[in-house]
Amino acid sequence: MQLFFEPRSVVLIGTSRQTGPGAYNNLEMLLSYGYPGRIYLVHPKVPDIMGYKTYPRVADLPEVPDLAVISLGRERVVPTAVECAQHGIKRLVVISQGFADADARGAELQAELVRLAREHGVRVLGPNTMGVLNPFSGFTTAFIDVPRDPAPAPLTMVAQSGAFQVGASSFTGRLGKAIDVGNACDLDMVDVLEYLADDPDTRIIVLHLEGIKRGRLFLATAARVARSKPIIALKTGRSLAGAKAAMSHTGSLVGEDAIVDLALAAAGIIRVRTLVELLAVSRAFLKFRPMAGPRLGVATATGAFGIIAADACEDHGLELAPFPEPLRDLEEERIPWHRLGNPIDLWPLGMVTGSFTGVFKRAVAGLFADEHVDAVLGVGPCFTSPRHADLNIPGAVRELRSANPLHKPLALLLYGDKTAHLAQVEELDREPNVACFNTMDEAIMGLAATWRYRQFHEAPAPGDFSLPQPSSRPLPLPPEEVLVGEAALNLLQAYDLPLVPGVLAADEAGAAAAAMEVGYPVVLKIISPEWVHKSDWGGVRLNVTTEAELRQVYLDLTARFHQSTPAGTLQGILVQKQVHGVELLMGLKRDPQFGPVLVAGAGGIYTEVLRDVARALVPITPDHGAKMLQSLKIFPILQGFRGQAGVDLPALAAALVNLSRLAVDYPEIRELDLNPVVAAPQGCWCVDCRVVL
Amino acid sequence: MQLFFEPRSVVLIGTSRQTGPGAYNNLEMLLSYGYPGRIYLVHPKVPDIMGYKTYPRVADLPEVPDLAVISLGRERVVPTAVECAQHGIKRLVVISQGFADADARGAELQAELVRLAREHGVRVLGPNTMGVLNPFSGFTTAFIDVPRDPAPAPLTMVAQSGAFQVGASSFTGRLGKAIDVGNACDLDMVDVLEYLADDPDTRIIVLHLEGIKRGRLFLATAARVARSKPIIALKTGRSLAGAKAAMSHTGSLVGEDAIVDLALAAAGIIRVRTLVELLAVSRAFLKFRPMAGPRLGVATATGAFGIIAADACEDHGLELAPFPEPLRDLEEERIPWHRLGNPIDLWPLGMVTGSFTGVFKRAVAGLFADEHVDAVLGVGPCFTSPRHADLNIPGAVRELRSANPLHKPLALLLYGDKTAHLAQVEELDREPNVACFNTMDEAIMGLAATWRYRQFHEAPAPGDFSLPQPSSRPLPLPPEEVLVGEAALNLLQAYDLPLVPGVLAADEAGAAAAAMEVGYPVVLKIISPEWVHKSDWGGVRLNVTTEAELRQVYLDLTARFHQSTPAGTLQGILVQKQVHGVELLMGLKRDPQFGPVLVAGAGGIYTEVLRDVARALVPITPDHGAKMLQSLKIFPILQGFRGQAGVDLPALAAALVNLSRLAVDYPEIRELDLNPVVAAPQGCWCVDCRVVL
Repeated sequence: MQLFFEPRSVVLIGTSRQTGPGAYNNLEMLLSYGYPGRIYLVHPKVPDIMGYKTYPRVADLPEVPDLAVISLGRERVVPTAVECAQHGIKRLVVISQGFADADARGAELQAELVRLAREHGVRVLGPNTMGVLNPFSGFTTAFIDVPRDPAPAPLTMVAQSGAFQVGASSFTGRLGKAIDVGNACDLDMVDVLEYLADDPDTRIIVLHLEGIKRGRLFLATAARVARSKPIIALKTGRSLAGAKAAMSHTGSLVGEDAIVDLALAAAGIIRVRTLVELLAVSRAFLKFRPMAGPRLGVATATGAFGIIAADACEDHGLELAPFPEPLRDLEEERIPWHRLGNPIDLWPLGMVTGSFTGVFKRAVAGLFADEHVDAVLGVGPCFTSPRHADLNIPGAVRELRSANPLHKPLALLLYGDKTAHLAQVEELDREPNVACFNTMDEAIMGLAATWRYRQFHEAPAPGDFSLPQPSSRPLPLPPEEVLVGEAALNLLQAYDLPLVPGVLAADEAGAAAAAMEVGYPVVLKIISPEWVHKSDWGGVRLNVTTEAELRQVYLDLTARFHQSTPAGTLQGILVQKQVHGVELLMGLKRDPQFGPVLVAGAGGIYTEVLRDVARALVPITPDHGAKMLQSLKIFPILQGFRGQAGVDLPALAAALVNLSRLAVDYPEIRELDLNPVVAAPQGCWCVDCRVVL
Repeated sequence: MQLFFEPRSVVLIGTSRQTGPGAYNNLEMLLSYGYPGRIYLVHPKVPDIMGYKTYPRVADLPEVPDLAVISLGRERVVPTAVECAQHGIKRLVVISQGFADADARGAELQAELVRLAREHGVRVLGPNTMGVLNPFSGFTTAFIDVPRDPAPAPLTMVAQSGAFQVGASSFTGRLGKAIDVGNACDLDMVDVLEYLADDPDTRIIVLHLEGIKRGRLFLATAARVARSKPIIALKTGRSLAGAKAAMSHTGSLVGEDAIVDLALAAAGIIRVRTLVELLAVSRAFLKFRPMAGPRLGVATATGAFGIIAADACEDHGLELAPFPEPLRDLEEERIPWHRLGNPIDLWPLGMVTGSFTGVFKRAVAGLFADEHVDAVLGVGPCFTSPRHADLNIPGAVRELRSANPLHKPLALLLYGDKTAHLAQVEELDREPNVACFNTMDEAIMGLAATWRYRQFHEAPAPGDFSLPQPSSRPLPLPPEEVLVGEAALNLLQAYDLPLVPGVLAADEAGAAAAAMEVGYPVVLKIISPEWVHKSDWGGVRLNVTTEAELRQVYLDLTARFHQSTPAGTLQGILVQKQVHGVELLMGLKRDPQFGPVLVAGAGGIYTEVLRDVARALVPITPDHGAKMLQSLKIFPILQGFRGQAGVDLPALAAALVNLSRLAVDYPEIRELDLNPVVAAPQGCWCVDCRVVL
């Protein structure tokens, strides 16, 4: 990976003979970027480009370059890659577009490229990439003129688009290395994270993710790297994921984006949802040590912005620290009516003393010194007018340099005329542990993200996210795409999932015998692969209390079935004991990125109405199962409140663990729905099950 | 009001003799601002300030100025106000601090100021204000050197802090007039809105609200003004409001902030929650005509940002328009594999044609022309490098001026090097119907706000928000602070609210007789003002089916009561018919700002768990009641689904209307809780009631 960022020699294949506007000539950009290594060009026709001799074929090159950069039309990429491999080149950057993201032919070409690369032991970055940018060593594959930053930041951007390199000042503020993995046909986020783990130029990692390949390994790698380097991720495509169709409740309740949320959080990745947040959080990590706690001290020139700070703290999970009592003497400066608190409203004190700068400095110093304060927010005006030379926040901050031995973050929100704002922000951004933000929200979002990271950092390391080996299966799976009725219930039974007592009856007499066996009152249900939504279609009758009623209901149900679906297969009528309790849902969903996910939530008629679900990556422990239940909105009902008995939480947690085992052993299960699971003070019962393969 | 903004003459009282840094001298600022009117000064000691002769007392002034600006210590404000009034001055701006927001003495002084003002027919702005800023006529009362904008914007800021005048470039971007109502002891938002309705300098109004005075009148005025001028409001103190204590479910479910939300939306005010949103929305209204529909067309230099745009549309309630088919020929420019859609990914076309500017122009023109597109978002790079002279979005936009006959908004997101960004944004911001935004979120938030406004604008005007006159009360209210049991139920009955049949029994025999009367099964409940939370404390027994059981339960309950609260008053044991159905909650809450608010939601054990509530300002119509029910998450359950019968929605709506009438007639009711209200297929019944006065 390192030689992708710092090749000693590079060959450019497909570079245009044109230069200047509209040419997107990567030789021109590489030269202007100040690359110190050896450059070769391959071109079939012209003898030289920009004064550099060209070679007609890769085989003609006088050495084996560390890296080849290909920007040919898509049909010529694979043959050229073969030439490179045959010449011994081990690393390719494929800029060319029109591959798997475009059409079927592109997908074929990409598969062929991967096959050849594997065969020859060649690693490929791209296709559809702008490649790498390394301002430290002076190397770039970009066909865009990105000026080389003379003071690169320790923040590395790993994206699926070149725009994040081109517009870094809008997206992460500052930038060091960058890599665009493009279609990630071979090299992906996992490879890049492995490399960045030990890269001395990287202290902070920002990921722009469209899709995630090798999901579990990605999480494990990220979790390991995040112990020492904060990883910020902008995962896009939230809206697209939401639109996917699903065949079960579990499927529709757990959008892919919710699983992304769960997975990234488990790996300690700081997810940002918007570009505003990306910029704010990047800035905070670039300038601040992570907050040691959630408590913020606010020194403000205006009470109004103290209230706005309190709102933002509530929005983003920070708290206002108690007022530092040693600062009480600020009050005694001639304003008996001024009540000090946190936020500290400094304006009246500034007016009376004639030195806002002075009171600001004392307040911030007091907040730095107070052990109950984890970070400081300063809000104040900035002016070019000489009439306000006394309002000098940059001056105060400079003088406070030695007053911050614990390196607490100082976030600043300046407002005033534009010229002063630009100048003072630039000046203040050079101070250590100080960062200016454009709005309150950005300041608080940024600080809060450092506190989230600190909590992850101090928690025990997460597991390795791997799936256990499947054990031998107690049952073979039938060939159907959807399992209902006995086939589904047998599977549950094999995993010790408690079933409500019931018998699948083939005729009226059998149903009557079944009811005697399980005991009245009973429930009757149509079991048929065509009647997946049997409740909605009137295929379920509750609370049948006598044999006469049962016989009537049996006839009604079968008549209804044959009338609505004359060609349907009626497997039978299920006669179950009617059980009472809180109705829950449990389920499984196989995520294309992260594999099996376990779900628990409110069930029965409340399923879709409440959408109250907890999720976890499989496998889980009983402890984890208990935590899922605790995180539900309906947990107080499960626990028992307002004089009602609670339900059997250990039995529910055990059922979740059993479901987790089942998910490991049957990877072909795409969705599984237990709804309802009836939970009572003693025990719980699965009443209905649907499995989608 | 107009003479507050454009006084022909002004007297400054309390102006410092000092000038320069730390002096906060409002004469110095007024002169530098270029005020064309006559200035007088009152000072007891010095003969002149900055060359202006002073008068020792107000009475000595040679004329009666239009306005007096007082910046004295708080104890001297009231006597000076009297002097002003006696001299005939009708308008005061009180800059001084330390009034009702500070301490009890400050509250006294403020009340005295208001009393005197009313007595003398004087209007007061403040205290605790920076006053007004009028760059159009050149008048300011600010003690801060805010440079006069030579091209003021048609956006007027009405705030409760001067910071919004001082830092306008950070908060609303541009600014015209501004007024800080401070403590709003006399002049408040209602007065200012009345004035702005006809102010030719004001096209957009931004409110910064900490509290809202004369709530109903404020809403009526705002709703009227908002028909022609968009009103954007930043209401702060969301977190503080949430912390208030409440005595009932209704109280705790309906935080004051939720009522603010409801009220502002009803008046067509565009609420913004953060400073990021304030800036984005202000910018959008300054530059754009409101979107005629929610459909956005996106022309982007990077596919990645098309996905980010789709996410932001989903977040903020816009939609992606269908792809304009006439643009299909863009595709035929030599890239057969490129699939066009909306967002339109332009980069491959730009690369192949060598002119990104050209394809950008064609795409945006196509989106302007398409009738299914209501606004356009352009995303592209900006460079200082001459190597990218072909990437010229400002050039394309200039040439598109005449291609936008419907004046559709064109929001732009540029990324690239900082210098180019600053220059191009400045250039583009001069184009009509064009605005640049720093991030995707801001662009979409801004556009979405114009669409929200358009919808309000096209909907029927809301009512006048007034409360009807109370009719004569059917019942006097008892003196207790909390009403339960019969006292509460009698009140319901007087308003035709259906009660579950029940009798308050004084002894065991009475209870048995009551059960016979209402019919088994019955429910028994302890009724006592000390047992407000009787369910939580085991004071309710459900499903009592026989007389023997009833007698036992009666003894149990009374024993339990006397054991836990020996000094308590047991009003009796309520014997009610047990009814079955969906448990709802209905209630009232009196908001300090907006008066009575009606609540309907999920009740019973789900109340606190789901927090599923709809709210409305009293009074409501049956239609409005029906809409409240429809907006609940549990509405599908009320409607009946999955084979279950629905509940009697007209009966529920009627109950809400009756509760609304009750709220009008008994303004002293602070909170009222009906929980549960049991809703069945035919009818509904109030089972329990609690009234807080």
